[in-house]
Amino acid sequence: MDVEEQMEIKLEANERIDDLMTETGLKIIQSREVFSFSLDAVLLSKFATVPKRGRIIDLCSGNGVIPMLLTTRTKASIDAVEIQPRLADMARRSVAMNKLDEQIKIIEADLRQYMKEAGNGVYDAVTVNPPYMAVQAGDSNENEHYSIARHEVHCTLEDVVHASARLVRSGGKVAMVHRPSRFIDIMETMRKYRLEPKRVQFIHPNAKGEANMVLIEAIRDGRPELRVLPPIMVYE
Amino acid sequence: MDVEEQMEIKLEANERIDDLMTETGLKIIQSREVFSFSLDAVLLSKFATVPKRGRIIDLCSGNGVIPMLLTTRTKASIDAVEIQPRLADMARRSVAMNKLDEQIKIIEADLRQYMKEAGNGVYDAVTVNPPYMAVQAGDSNENEHYSIARHEVHCTLEDVVHASARLVRSGGKVAMVHRPSRFIDIMETMRKYRLEPKRVQFIHPNAKGEANMVLIEAIRDGRPELRVLPPIMVYE
Repeated sequence: MDVEEQMEIKLEANERIDDLMTETGLKIIQSREVFSFSLDAVLLSKFATVPKRGRIIDLCSGNGVIPMLLTTRTKASIDAVEIQPRLADMARRSVAMNKLDEQIKIIEADLRQYMKEAGNGVYDAVTVNPPYMAVQAGDSNENEHYSIARHEVHCTLEDVVHASARLVRSGGKVAMVHRPSRFIDIMETMRKYRLEPKRVQFIHPNAKGEANMVLIEAIRDGRPELRVLPPIMVYE
Repeated sequence: MDVEEQMEIKLEANERIDDLMTETGLKIIQSREVFSFSLDAVLLSKFATVPKRGRIIDLCSGNGVIPMLLTTRTKASIDAVEIQPRLADMARRSVAMNKLDEQIKIIEADLRQYMKEAGNGVYDAVTVNPPYMAVQAGDSNENEHYSIARHEVHCTLEDVVHASARLVRSGGKVAMVHRPSRFIDIMETMRKYRLEPKRVQFIHPNAKGEANMVLIEAIRDGRPELRVLPPIMVYE
């Protein structure tokens, strides 16, 4: 992207443009004040099974990093739901900067409300990098943007799973990244909403370390049979 | 063990004595006709958290390999329940051969019956390497001994979990080895009987292969929080 193009994108105070290291040269607007994407999102974007065409929805989308990364793998149209106006605005400007407005639509909404309006089973796949921490945990001194992105303030694990199960069609796929400590709760909640976990991959910092992330893909109305993929060691 | 000692142990036709490769020189009676222990049992014996003293029970004990291997790690007394008379007899002779009669007691019983008679919460830890396959699967031509050891003929996953939960004390540990494809069923069934999965370790054939075994340890009445240990790669 040359300087002239960048000038069309308005950056707020303390925002910066980061390179997403893709072959297609994607860039993203980030801000230390609000929220920056992390390895979780990158791994989920690679892990999720995506349809070649059709419709995908990314929930808890933050600054839109997952939808943007998914454009390197699919021609499907991608909707992205984010509850925080500041983050939804950043995501929209990033999409515009990458000229992806045709493929990605950023929706500023509460997913609990959105799932009722969007219609049942209208998506072929769902991706979601939800808040990890229960509301009581963590540091209450952190700013509100971080707090909402990290904690189950506006949506609990059950809200996320419920919305995913309702939005995806039967046979469609729901991919999530989360913490291994919550793994059993996730499995139980998914089954409660007829999402059958089918592929799991644990992320370890290295060969001697316990898993600190887990990637999970479930199929709506799928047959029970789990596959545990080779582990990912981050620092090898 | 010298020749004189071995001669005291009566071997049936087609039985052989294998070395368990322990520092204590343990040996075990095996038979290709009946059942031989496999890597699963060895890995479970290392994985399980065992009390230094107290009481341990091994369910679906087969030829007693797990109780014998556990004696290298604990002074606890170990009961072993096996339903098949032929295997229970082999296990008893192996125990005698290793002069472990003081520490290990082989009980020929159906665990569904035994759990009612033994008393609730009388064990500090449970180990179990249950049959893996649903009854309809597998080869119906295989002999009955193999069939019972491999398939859920005399006990389903739920029977095993139910018995474990009833036999172990609150705060006690239940360690199991199983197939990853059944992982979610195991988690769900354990929680149903108040066994909270706390430590999990996946076994992969190598760094590029999907997991083909899983080790799981639950705590009776434990607090939900799962740890996923570094994976084991068998051929590295």
